Amino acid sequence: MSIRIEKDTMGPVEVPAHRYWGAQTQRSKDNFTIGGQLMPKEVISAFAILKKAAAFANAELGVLPMEKAEIIGKVCDEISAGYLDDEFPLVVWQTGSGTQSNMNVNEVVANRAHVLLGGDLMDEKKKIHPNDDVNKSQSSNDTFPTAMHIAAYKAVTETTLPMVKKLRDTLHAKSQEYMNVVKIGRTHLMDATPLTLGQELSGYVSQLDHAMKAIKNTLDHLSELALGGSAVGTGLNTPKGYDVLVAKKISEFSGLPMRTAENKFESLAAHDAIVETHGALKQLAVSLMKIANDIRLLASGPRSGIGEIIIPENEPGSSIMPGKVNPTQAEAMTMVCAQVMGNDVAVSVGGMNGHFELNVFKPVMIFNLLMSARLLGDACDSFDKHCAVGIEPNYEVIKRQLENSLMLVTALNPHVGYDNAAKIAKKAHKEGTTLRQAALELGLLTDEQFTEWVKPEDMIGSLK
Amino acid sequence: MSIRIEKDTMGPVEVPAHRYWGAQTQRSKDNFTIGGQLMPKEVISAFAILKKAAAFANAELGVLPMEKAEIIGKVCDEISAGYLDDEFPLVVWQTGSGTQSNMNVNEVVANRAHVLLGGDLMDEKKKIHPNDDVNKSQSSNDTFPTAMHIAAYKAVTETTLPMVKKLRDTLHAKSQEYMNVVKIGRTHLMDATPLTLGQELSGYVSQLDHAMKAIKNTLDHLSELALGGSAVGTGLNTPKGYDVLVAKKISEFSGLPMRTAENKFESLAAHDAIVETHGALKQLAVSLMKIANDIRLLASGPRSGIGEIIIPENEPGSSIMPGKVNPTQAEAMTMVCAQVMGNDVAVSVGGMNGHFELNVFKPVMIFNLLMSARLLGDACDSFDKHCAVGIEPNYEVIKRQLENSLMLVTALNPHVGYDNAAKIAKKAHKEGTTLRQAALELGLLTDEQFTEWVKPEDMIGSLK
Amino acid sequence: MSIRIEKDTMGPVEVPAHRYWGAQTQRSKDNFTIGGQLMPKEVISAFAILKKAAAFANAELGVLPMEKAEIIGKVCDEISAGYLDDEFPLVVWQTGSGTQSNMNVNEVVANRAHVLLGGDLMDEKKKIHPNDDVNKSQSSNDTFPTAMHIAAYKAVTETTLPMVKKLRDTLHAKSQEYMNVVKIGRTHLMDATPLTLGQELSGYVSQLDHAMKAIKNTLDHLSELALGGSAVGTGLNTPKGYDVLVAKKISEFSGLPMRTAENKFESLAAHDAIVETHGALKQLAVSLMKIANDIRLLASGPRSGIGEIIIPENEPGSSIMPGKVNPTQAEAMTMVCAQVMGNDVAVSVGGMNGHFELNVFKPVMIFNLLMSARLLGDACDSFDKHCAVGIEPNYEVIKRQLENSLMLVTALNPHVGYDNAAKIAKKAHKEGTTLRQAALELGLLTDEQFTEWVKPEDMIGSLK
Amino acid sequence: MSIRIEKDTMGPVEVPAHRYWGAQTQRSKDNFTIGGQLMPKEVISAFAILKKAAAFANAELGVLPMEKAEIIGKVCDEISAGYLDDEFPLVVWQTGSGTQSNMNVNEVVANRAHVLLGGDLMDEKKKIHPNDDVNKSQSSNDTFPTAMHIAAYKAVTETTLPMVKKLRDTLHAKSQEYMNVVKIGRTHLMDATPLTLGQELSGYVSQLDHAMKAIKNTLDHLSELALGGSAVGTGLNTPKGYDVLVAKKISEFSGLPMRTAENKFESLAAHDAIVETHGALKQLAVSLMKIANDIRLLASGPRSGIGEIIIPENEPGSSIMPGKVNPTQAEAMTMVCAQVMGNDVAVSVGGMNGHFELNVFKPVMIFNLLMSARLLGDACDSFDKHCAVGIEPNYEVIKRQLENSLMLVTALNPHVGYDNAAKIAKKAHKEGTTLRQAALELGLLTDEQFTEWVKPEDMIGSLK
Repeated sequence: MSIRIEKDTMGPVEVPAHRYWGAQTQRSKDNFTIGGQLMPKEVISAFAILKKAAAFANAELGVLPMEKAEIIGKVCDEISAGYLDDEFPLVVWQTGSGTQSNMNVNEVVANRAHVLLGGDLMDEKKKIHPNDDVNKSQSSNDTFPTAMHIAAYKAVTETTLPMVKKLRDTLHAKSQEYMNVVKIGRTHLMDATPLTLGQELSGYVSQLDHAMKAIKNTLDHLSELALGGSAVGTGLNTPKGYDVLVAKKISEFSGLPMRTAENKFESLAAHDAIVETHGALKQLAVSLMKIANDIRLLASGPRSGIGEIIIPENEPGSSIMPGKVNPTQAEAMTMVCAQVMGNDVAVSVGGMNGHFELNVFKPVMIFNLLMSARLLGDACDSFDKHCAVGIEPNYEVIKRQLENSLMLVTALNPHVGYDNAAKIAKKAHKEGTTLRQAALELGLLTDEQFTEWVKPEDMIGSLK
Repeated sequence: MSIRIEKDTMGPVEVPAHRYWGAQTQRSKDNFTIGGQLMPKEVISAFAILKKAAAFANAELGVLPMEKAEIIGKVCDEISAGYLDDEFPLVVWQTGSGTQSNMNVNEVVANRAHVLLGGDLMDEKKKIHPNDDVNKSQSSNDTFPTAMHIAAYKAVTETTLPMVKKLRDTLHAKSQEYMNVVKIGRTHLMDATPLTLGQELSGYVSQLDHAMKAIKNTLDHLSELALGGSAVGTGLNTPKGYDVLVAKKISEFSGLPMRTAENKFESLAAHDAIVETHGALKQLAVSLMKIANDIRLLASGPRSGIGEIIIPENEPGSSIMPGKVNPTQAEAMTMVCAQVMGNDVAVSVGGMNGHFELNVFKPVMIFNLLMSARLLGDACDSFDKHCAVGIEPNYEVIKRQLENSLMLVTALNPHVGYDNAAKIAKKAHKEGTTLRQAALELGLLTDEQFTEWVKPEDMIGSLK
Repeated sequence: MSIRIEKDTMGPVEVPAHRYWGAQTQRSKDNFTIGGQLMPKEVISAFAILKKAAAFANAELGVLPMEKAEIIGKVCDEISAGYLDDEFPLVVWQTGSGTQSNMNVNEVVANRAHVLLGGDLMDEKKKIHPNDDVNKSQSSNDTFPTAMHIAAYKAVTETTLPMVKKLRDTLHAKSQEYMNVVKIGRTHLMDATPLTLGQELSGYVSQLDHAMKAIKNTLDHLSELALGGSAVGTGLNTPKGYDVLVAKKISEFSGLPMRTAENKFESLAAHDAIVETHGALKQLAVSLMKIANDIRLLASGPRSGIGEIIIPENEPGSSIMPGKVNPTQAEAMTMVCAQVMGNDVAVSVGGMNGHFELNVFKPVMIFNLLMSARLLGDACDSFDKHCAVGIEPNYEVIKRQLENSLMLVTALNPHVGYDNAAKIAKKAHKEGTTLRQAALELGLLTDEQFTEWVKPEDMIGSLK
Repeated sequence: MSIRIEKDTMGPVEVPAHRYWGAQTQRSKDNFTIGGQLMPKEVISAFAILKKAAAFANAELGVLPMEKAEIIGKVCDEISAGYLDDEFPLVVWQTGSGTQSNMNVNEVVANRAHVLLGGDLMDEKKKIHPNDDVNKSQSSNDTFPTAMHIAAYKAVTETTLPMVKKLRDTLHAKSQEYMNVVKIGRTHLMDATPLTLGQELSGYVSQLDHAMKAIKNTLDHLSELALGGSAVGTGLNTPKGYDVLVAKKISEFSGLPMRTAENKFESLAAHDAIVETHGALKQLAVSLMKIANDIRLLASGPRSGIGEIIIPENEPGSSIMPGKVNPTQAEAMTMVCAQVMGNDVAVSVGGMNGHFELNVFKPVMIFNLLMSARLLGDACDSFDKHCAVGIEPNYEVIKRQLENSLMLVTALNPHVGYDNAAKIAKKAHKEGTTLRQAALELGLLTDEQFTEWVKPEDMIGSLK
């Protein structure tokens, strides 16, 4: 491999001749051969936005020539467009401030700009300096958390929430469609009083509505940007008005409603906003685990399970049992939920271990948040398309199980009292008979009364 | 021990003659000798409120005689006042719906009411029936989650939030007081550019402000009450308008802004509101862990640590090292935070494992939420009173460490560029000299320029 | 309340006149009004053992008069017998080294010894000094972790393991008893090829066997004692040979196979042994969650669920649905498992946050371990007694569901190939017929062949 | 893209013409566009070993022609060699049994074998059948867990343990080298009695020794293989003796000491072995978090922190603060530890949610275990090479901080008693003087006595 020599404050380093990155990127690449997981591209994209914003804010405030801002902005646009994807070789498991990824961006922007301005990568002196120009009025300590918030906000609002909404809408439509399908209820996994399939599904819809609301509640904190805090939060070496201006530009370039954080010391030293948002994603995972679990239980069988609903058959289910079909989308979903549960602990452990002016668990925190946001979004989309849209009642099974239920006896409470109603149910259960039979034999009511009082369709409240 | 015979639908049971509880309580007491942890008294108190509310709502809606409602309400007031504390012997680790604690309350209210009405505990037939009267228009499945929300809302708003606020206000006052005390900053635990002690503390204040906001964001979900959902969410055996009315009465009796849940199926089958609120408590724990950790590190020494602040000496610190004083309040606080981190997982695991119409992890979920809410509140109060109020700068140490710092060199970036500034710092570090000395020897600037450019007090941005 | 004045190195403190505790206990009681959870009595009992052991080791090594050792030992025996239970008022949420509980024990032993020796609590000078005598050759830093290991070892071996074994033996007996009851298997919650009920139960037995083995694997680390490490692990102020001797005495007094830790620095600064043991308890919780979940699913119904086994009816299941019976023991068990999952995180967070020579999350770590050990032991005992011993097959349901199963088709793979077998199953499923019918209609085999090849009782492998 | 038509029991599917995979792989690829994370290649490699072992075991037992076994084995060798890496496009987030990855392997082996045997991918009928030949005597339900155990065993023993050992050996060498460097101890982050740097490091060595032992303790469970259990654990459609034989072949082909599981029902339905091993990895993470934290604190400064050790400078530390060097390896390590903490919860949540005969969280469990095993191994290697090997004492700082310490007073306990010693320390602290000065002024001992009694080098116990 052809190489060239790049320098940083520690001395010369060999880098691949054709790469735009420089000495510090190369050092990190060599010093952190851990785990193989690259810094998420969403973080790099966020950096492209903020570097461009910083450049133009600097220019507008008179601390950077406009030509430099323009060429920096141009490279940032290239990064955003994905043209330079191979130039970001660093892993998540690097310095905890993300400094090396910040420098990776600085170096790539500076070197690529140099080339765009007619220079050659081999030139010893570049027309744009990674620190003095690209990183002007910035520190890793305020850029990386800014990139975290941009990337997180984007992932949650563009990947997670729309897909949750889509699944929610499908479930809502199903809930409306089957609002009159009376079925047995189950509490403690045991037969209980009836409800409709639509009502059952409406509970899931309500869970997802609350989960989306909880996620949205966290966005305000996430919209606060650290940029302008500089090295420790004081804004050292940044021009007056810079923090507000750069946040405005970031909003403009990203289309997200971001604003400068009121307190930059928090923004560097703690990432409670990430903890907060991930907490809401974890709540969503808790909800989805319940929903997916219920759906696979309701679809279980087909002959020797609950079997009250039918879900789409998407693929052969078994390499040994011919003709088997499994609730695979529910399985992918619940695995995702397990992962998000774990990610929440990783994020929290990272969040609580900051020291003084800097939290140095930044990469692991954003890595986990982005993983969760994407997994949940993708899983909702997949579950929606390949499972939820195809849910159908198995009317025959629903009818049989409803009629069998002993808990219809609850309708008798107001008429014969709890103790007598219990006697009826116990007798029927013991003798394997129907409630009607048991009730009549006990002489607690007449056949007509039973017919009048025990109507599943009257036991389901008002439907919406 | 003198006993009496009580009966339920399963037959007779021996209970202590003088106890108000009945057969089902006794069965649970015998069948669940697990762990020894009683159902939190906050849950019992919440039950007292809701049973009273249900009785009066029932009366108002014409399904219970007003005299019965009144005597039920009277016993509930006794429970609220703590007169019957010994009558609730059941543990957390019982049925997952909390049915047995609901029946415990029903039985105690019924039997105590019978006695208040002139009856005798030994009477076979009681004037008030635990199911048909006290539990009228209710099910464990909607009462227990209602009690959970009442108890959780109360704990969070009356125990947690006020104490966090108190600590926040103390830290804010300290932040204001020491806003001009310039000190060294630290990133990666390494010397960095300066900030003021007040600025450093302001970051903690901002964390707590955000944590309180996050907690408050969850209260809306917590204010939704399941009551009226009855056995499976359909409202079976409840009179029309009951759910709205009983929520109104609960608000009135509790002083909390509660309302009936729009979707009762969710309210029984999932406890995402508990997951949501605990998620916010966990975020608070993450914040407090950072804050308490910083404070003990800042106070470390007294001679061979960081030693920049002095915290109150509350007790001898060592049984073997005489004269030792330790940051014990920070230790209690961080232990509490560790517990809350764990509790969050317990709550989430409980929350995600509901089945069909009922989540049966109710007691473990509310137990953990109440534990966390109280621990965090108490710990903030204790930390505030016994530590935060007494924080003082150690001016001598602060001054010495500030002057030593090599990172003041950052002030030279705009004047000599990053690369030259790095040369100065490295030279001073290597040779153990001052920055000024190194800068002059390198001939990069004049003595006067150094004096003009490197002023810690100019490196801290604008103070608020 | 009558008071007396006690002194420590910080000055005078008022304590209740009749209490044996002294100044430092009182300070802690006043300074840590957090959470209300007292230091577990198992820790106090462990302290009684180690204080006695230390006293006699000191005497034997000539640094404490034997009379003092004897009177100290006498008070320790009183503590062990529970006579002084009210003398330990401190909470878990105190200093993270447990210093104050160590001093609580020192003070109670000294003062009680003084009284036993004829002194009066009001005497200013006591015959036994809490630090110079009772705490001789000790530090909180080595006594508290020693108490942790003693208490943990005892809890795990005397509470947890025997109860797991009991449950395991019951399940094993049931497994043997029902080894020939052929039933349908279920994978992905869907009908699969058959196995016997005994085989199914044997999987649980194997899980518990592995869990017990995993727990036992951790005992070796737990048997290492910190005592002799003194303040920082160096053994300062302890006589030569003390660490080995005191461990020997602890083994003798406790009946547990303890030994002195090879490396005392680890023993004070880290509690990986607690993390390790709790990790194994968490594994047990994972196993029990699966087992209890399966059992409640198998028992679900009774009419509209899986319903293949019958479990004991222990109490009325519903306050509104008469005659309902629920799998309450499984619910208590799974709630316990959720708690243990959470406790594991609390323990780990505590374990990873030690600094330098001391971990100061000691109380929270041992609190959680003891809670988990007891909860798991109690829950296994309860589940065993009130549920597992009564498990019975519902032969009728088992037979019906087995015969319905389409997955018996798997027996045809070796005869007609996977693809043809799949055709048969799919046809039967689609048309709602039997496998035999579908197979014959497809002309893939004869009636005799079907009878010969598809025998559920031949599909279950060899039974043990 | 050129396509061909493949069929499975559900009908025809279009697949890329040049790919070896077939219909079921393609269905999964289309149906699970979630998260983008491919099934770890370690799992695919393990499948290659087990498919080859199964083929030869089948041949040996007479149920598969030896020629078929040989060609299957040949393709498996190609997979092991990495020649077919692009043929496994499925993600982790698929069916929870991993069925689709099992079929992916079956299809690739069958089609590639067909080609090797001279066939063409376009041929409708292939010479080797994915189910009837490649999957013979197997089910996803026993192959996937077998692959999990092979991959996990390999990762832990070949990646994790050797790297932990390497780091442990470096720390041990450092511990020996600096065994006589007396320094101040710190408890509660506060100055305490002295120890040597070597002693301090020996605590870390002991932690790692215990962690490695804990991991090794779990290998026995991990060495149990599910293969031979077939669809539900009964061994349906497997020849007699197959399970033992195939395990023997797997051991042979993999070089790992694997054996057939005694109870196959557990092996399919639960993955407690994965939970167990990950629990031990989590313990290692807890240890490493402590160690890395200590090292960065000890190296903090360089001027205004603890600064007692010097660690290698590997890269420029700050994009804004010139000359700054940070403990970046410690940061990568602690981030890894946070991740492993989270992964442990993901694994446990997966482990506890199996149902009946099958746990369907297999992919998420092995994904997390392999991630943790690799991250920990890589991070230990990196931390060792780039940090631990270069640790050096900063003798000057160590000396200064030792001499300053007030806790040397502890050496006086046996001579003047705890209370008097406390007086000396408190006086010196208050007045900012030395212990000697304070002791003499209090008249508690002579200058000579102080010199004789207070010797840091005598306070460190016996060195090993």
